[in-house]
Amino acid sequence: MTVNNNLTWHDTVVTKEMRQKRNQHKSAVLFFTGLSGSGKSTLANDVSRKLHELNVQSYVLDGDNIRQGLNKDLGFKEEDRKENIRRIGEVSKLLVDSGQFAITAFISPYQSDRQVVRELLLKDEFIEVYVKCPLNECELRDPKGLYKKARSGEIPHFTGVSSPYEEPVNPELIIDTYNETRERCAEIVLSYLVDHQLITT
Amino acid sequence: MTVNNNLTWHDTVVTKEMRQKRNQHKSAVLFFTGLSGSGKSTLANDVSRKLHELNVQSYVLDGDNIRQGLNKDLGFKEEDRKENIRRIGEVSKLLVDSGQFAITAFISPYQSDRQVVRELLLKDEFIEVYVKCPLNECELRDPKGLYKKARSGEIPHFTGVSSPYEEPVNPELIIDTYNETRERCAEIVLSYLVDHQLITT
Repeated sequence: MTVNNNLTWHDTVVTKEMRQKRNQHKSAVLFFTGLSGSGKSTLANDVSRKLHELNVQSYVLDGDNIRQGLNKDLGFKEEDRKENIRRIGEVSKLLVDSGQFAITAFISPYQSDRQVVRELLLKDEFIEVYVKCPLNECELRDPKGLYKKARSGEIPHFTGVSSPYEEPVNPELIIDTYNETRERCAEIVLSYLVDHQLITT
Repeated sequence: MTVNNNLTWHDTVVTKEMRQKRNQHKSAVLFFTGLSGSGKSTLANDVSRKLHELNVQSYVLDGDNIRQGLNKDLGFKEEDRKENIRRIGEVSKLLVDSGQFAITAFISPYQSDRQVVRELLLKDEFIEVYVKCPLNECELRDPKGLYKKARSGEIPHFTGVSSPYEEPVNPELIIDTYNETRERCAEIVLSYLVDHQLITT
């Protein structure tokens, strides 16, 4: 690694644009927000599977791979929830830079936290998807029994029960998982990506 | 998103193995460790560029994209340096899960911190690369003028000057950037990946 060597060596690094060109698709964050039980993780995985079938690189960030790993030092008090979303935003940005779609599935109840993530990214790289479902339906589904625990007081500060959920003000997409079929929900997301020329089919 | 729909829907998620099959290469962490000025970032970017030319997905994590982003809340005291490396390990694990090679370029002076990252990953997924260069040569190169500041006391706890560097005990690779050319250094890393059937050329 001599100086002479350095002089004749190209110091280019692999850029996001180079990766996107190789992959033949753009990269962006699909930021799913909504109540517990609204269908975020299901939809995230459905979209990721459909993208995989189209040979599009994507990766789902959710409680399973974030709360047990990167954010295992964080609890559920307000500053920890803020930091949780901030780190998810930063990791999403790295994934986008690496040429992938980052698909995040977290409640992320506060507009200000979602705004922090939006501001980390370029305009076309942040797609806020409000996964909309009435609270009583979410509570009826209660896939993990969390609403039951929240109502009994076993879980404090539970979004929708004892802690607020701030609806997105101007989300790029609203997915109504109460009225639409599961298949249709995923199709709407895919159509958005095609319409905005982020992927081709 | 009705119950009937759920019954007829395949709940498989996209796995690391599915991504590796699509990409036609494995995924792993190339964890570069060594003194400041030893050539970690240069080598990381050289390897990443060569991998890109082979159509292999990789992503470099270094001070530029981590210290300004995910880890911008961390300083340089010992517990912060530990947390810095822990988070880098967790993000690397996510990148590996997403089917990419994570290439990390941080001093990471402590054996115990490197061991924490090693234990996050499967046996064949963690490749510790000791980027070896004598301290006096690193200090001569001093690309960012950091040794000068460390010697004058402007930077406290600087690895190699006022803070220890623990050499890797059993690294998978040692790259001698003092005696080998820059081109050769990158080739040795690529050869390792081919020999261990992580990539094909």
